[in-house]
Amino acid sequence: MLIVPEREIADLMTQKAAFDAVEQVFAAMASGDAYNFPVVREAIGHEDALYGFKGGFDRAGLTLGLKAGGYWPNNLEKRGLINHQSTVFLFDPDTGKPSAMVGGNLLTALRTAAASSVSIKHLARKDAKVIGMIGAGHQATFQLRAALEQRAFEKVIGWNYHPEMLPNLAKVAEEVGVPFEAVDLPGMDEADVIISITSAFSPSLVADHVSPGTHLACMGTDTKGKQEVEAGLLARASVFTDEVAQSISIGEAQHAIAEGLIRESDIAQLGAVINGSHPGRTSDDQITLFDGTGVGLQDLAVAAAVVDLAVERGVAVEVDF
Amino acid sequence: MLIVPEREIADLMTQKAAFDAVEQVFAAMASGDAYNFPVVREAIGHEDALYGFKGGFDRAGLTLGLKAGGYWPNNLEKRGLINHQSTVFLFDPDTGKPSAMVGGNLLTALRTAAASSVSIKHLARKDAKVIGMIGAGHQATFQLRAALEQRAFEKVIGWNYHPEMLPNLAKVAEEVGVPFEAVDLPGMDEADVIISITSAFSPSLVADHVSPGTHLACMGTDTKGKQEVEAGLLARASVFTDEVAQSISIGEAQHAIAEGLIRESDIAQLGAVINGSHPGRTSDDQITLFDGTGVGLQDLAVAAAVVDLAVERGVAVEVDF
Repeated sequence: MLIVPEREIADLMTQKAAFDAVEQVFAAMASGDAYNFPVVREAIGHEDALYGFKGGFDRAGLTLGLKAGGYWPNNLEKRGLINHQSTVFLFDPDTGKPSAMVGGNLLTALRTAAASSVSIKHLARKDAKVIGMIGAGHQATFQLRAALEQRAFEKVIGWNYHPEMLPNLAKVAEEVGVPFEAVDLPGMDEADVIISITSAFSPSLVADHVSPGTHLACMGTDTKGKQEVEAGLLARASVFTDEVAQSISIGEAQHAIAEGLIRESDIAQLGAVINGSHPGRTSDDQITLFDGTGVGLQDLAVAAAVVDLAVERGVAVEVDF
Repeated sequence: MLIVPEREIADLMTQKAAFDAVEQVFAAMASGDAYNFPVVREAIGHEDALYGFKGGFDRAGLTLGLKAGGYWPNNLEKRGLINHQSTVFLFDPDTGKPSAMVGGNLLTALRTAAASSVSIKHLARKDAKVIGMIGAGHQATFQLRAALEQRAFEKVIGWNYHPEMLPNLAKVAEEVGVPFEAVDLPGMDEADVIISITSAFSPSLVADHVSPGTHLACMGTDTKGKQEVEAGLLARASVFTDEVAQSISIGEAQHAIAEGLIRESDIAQLGAVINGSHPGRTSDDQITLFDGTGVGLQDLAVAAAVVDLAVERGVAVEVDF
């Protein structure tokens, strides 16, 4: 039984390893080799916390387990701890015995960033030059940093509900020597790729803000009621997702489905594009939209990757369990 | 973060500690202080394994977490490991950080035994003399050993589908100096308390085998389709359970409910008897029946108890997580 504590993850895990793990598991999901279990998510009535489990099994990668944890909104103010707290537990699929316990906080940020990044690799135009960010919080910096590796972007533009946070994005752009510009929402029509990563309950981006040929990754909507983009935009776009069942119930597509603008069968798995069983983008004018809802298998995949890295570097703590 | 490995549990945990933990959490469930989360249970399509999570939160005891694991039917033959494999993970309800990881195999046996034992304490006649066992496997020995502490039993009688296993029961009876007798099913009418602990899919015990005044604890049925006693017996009895929702769907009561012999409102929580908000047994002629389905909160309660004992004895392994 191996333990990789949260404090080790930053030194071990790379954006590249997270990307590869998520790309691989999306492909396994689409080919039927990997599946997510029903999600448990409970408001426990203590500290206003949301707590639950996201589990799954990847038969191809032989990765079994769950991420447990949730959101403790008072952590930062009361205790100086981050509000999102999670831990990944891996099990040996041959025996049912626990095989690893891994800090899940940074991994969650990395696997979420990897998802939009994988969507950009497989769905954005090859000649994409301008990337637009809707949202400028902590997670937005992870999304942007990962995205910038996927195309030869020449400019980052950004919009946020709280403009005073935009320097977060400017700083990431500066790291890679790309200019940053704050824009209003209509200014997003300059972008070839747009990532939305907010926790909004009403849309900011509308169809008119999006130019033909754009790839959108909607990463913020993971709950019933949340919404980042106008539902009509999904009708204009070719829609892809990590998991269709989540996309139509708790993802960005929930609204377009509810309004009858698209049907479940209009939504394809990103993994099918990775596998080559779906053509993905077929023209330079097409708008592609990835509805990233976040699945347990992503967490298991990055955790398994970091355990391998920890073993290689000799920093995994072995416990005789 | 504390670790209590499986190999330590036998030396640490006592029948009494398991009894107290389960009695307390049944009471907390009935008073609304503790609740179980939806159960995840998946046939993962590898090694014929069943795997899943049983979680819950006890606001009174401040115990939060889950038991993860399941049933790996090839473990014993292929690898010399037991087929049931489980691990309990506890979390700090104030912060969401993991607080303990505990081997769950022996604890599962002890908490299941504690449940029927708690039901005997609160529902059997004080003057019960004869205890009858339906089932004589490994788990039956735990149920019997725990039950024998609850009344001044003078005789153990037993029946099993495979009579060659009855010496398992005789051995436990001998430990406490009580005679054991193998009986046929009609012979169960001699018993004042009956525990059924089989994994049968059709009833063995019928209403005619049960005398007025008997307390039954049906402990084997935890899945749709399983059944240990004739459904009509539940109509003759006052029915109690750990959790009503499980009792009517996957517990022994599923059949009587499906046949319209009893209604959901006929089933009371054993915890309500412990709390004093339900009178429990009200006459010496009454048949009482406890439908023990097994809930995650039982696992969390015994795991929390064993962590306390491990800390007291200095055998908990501390990991800086």
